[in-house]
Amino acid sequence: MKKRERKSAAATRDLLLDAATSLMAERRSPDISLADIAERTGMSRALVIYYFGSKEGMLLAVLDLGVSQAVAGLAELAVADLPVKTKLRMHISGLVRTYIQVPYANQLLQLMMLPDNPGRAHKVAEIYVRPLSEFYQSIIEQGAREGVFRVVDARLFYFMLVGATEHFTASGLVMSDIFGEPGITEVLQRRYEAFLYETALGVLAPGERD
Amino acid sequence: MKKRERKSAAATRDLLLDAATSLMAERRSPDISLADIAERTGMSRALVIYYFGSKEGMLLAVLDLGVSQAVAGLAELAVADLPVKTKLRMHISGLVRTYIQVPYANQLLQLMMLPDNPGRAHKVAEIYVRPLSEFYQSIIEQGAREGVFRVVDARLFYFMLVGATEHFTASGLVMSDIFGEPGITEVLQRRYEAFLYETALGVLAPGERD
Repeated sequence: MKKRERKSAAATRDLLLDAATSLMAERRSPDISLADIAERTGMSRALVIYYFGSKEGMLLAVLDLGVSQAVAGLAELAVADLPVKTKLRMHISGLVRTYIQVPYANQLLQLMMLPDNPGRAHKVAEIYVRPLSEFYQSIIEQGAREGVFRVVDARLFYFMLVGATEHFTASGLVMSDIFGEPGITEVLQRRYEAFLYETALGVLAPGERD
Repeated sequence: MKKRERKSAAATRDLLLDAATSLMAERRSPDISLADIAERTGMSRALVIYYFGSKEGMLLAVLDLGVSQAVAGLAELAVADLPVKTKLRMHISGLVRTYIQVPYANQLLQLMMLPDNPGRAHKVAEIYVRPLSEFYQSIIEQGAREGVFRVVDARLFYFMLVGATEHFTASGLVMSDIFGEPGITEVLQRRYEAFLYETALGVLAPGERD
């Protein structure tokens, strides 16, 4: 492939990815078809298949696009010359913000982690779960070296923090229906970020437990 | 309807519910049809529709069956004459155990809370979310009266604890693939219960925050 063709191929793929993410955001669901993408872009379904290989390939590409920037940020934060509590606070804000900004992320991840396709689940876990749990491992180690954290299992910490973030951002109607809040407002988001930070600090604090 | 007919109707409904929960457990997914239930029980699809009304009616009945016992236990625990930390510890163990015992619960709840059907989401929230958040409100108040907890927003506590439990029990392939554990073993389950208890105690502990 010549250089100009490669550039054009990349542009087409970006266009298709952009259509896919727009459709998911509009529907607040990752349940879109390759035909939907073809229709939105005016391209043929065959061309969409050429670029993504399959629906699974499309879902993986969307996930990769959505989390690659966040994951790169995570790696930078891990090695940044900052106090560990600042890193933790920045990370929690970023995690909550990412889940709120990409309303289909949660469902997309769950769809892709179903046990019907271990190969796909493995790729997703490598793209998303491993970087997160390695980040937690690194800040727990930094905190322990600085004497401000105790050593806890980074995997358990991962399940707690990511699960807590997911459930909040996927709360949908519960917020208005049960809790009488008009969805996740800016104020509520900030309060939850502060709550999660205190939660994380609480379990990481050195000292005796009951 | 005569008494004997009512009894027989209840038995038939139980039989259909039993088939529905067995099918979900076997497939580890709530994605079953009324036709699947008809086939499993040897009854006609019309009879299944007569008892459940619709697929949504069937899903609601399965959820109600799965959580009604747990919710009743929650109400008892709330008023039990026990130290608040004992209540919290017992509740967390029960929550993790329930999510592990009903492997389709998580997906079932999410499916039923999708915003496409606010009426259904409302019923699910009333059956499940409200009792949980009211339980948290009651133990936070008890702990504050006893001087062992600070007052935190029970809704934020709900999202944290339930989300953390959900994410762990739905971890599936992540456990083996990324974390090298053979799924959720008894030992890992106990460790996570202890971790969540410490996490909850940490955020509820009175005193200054960073």
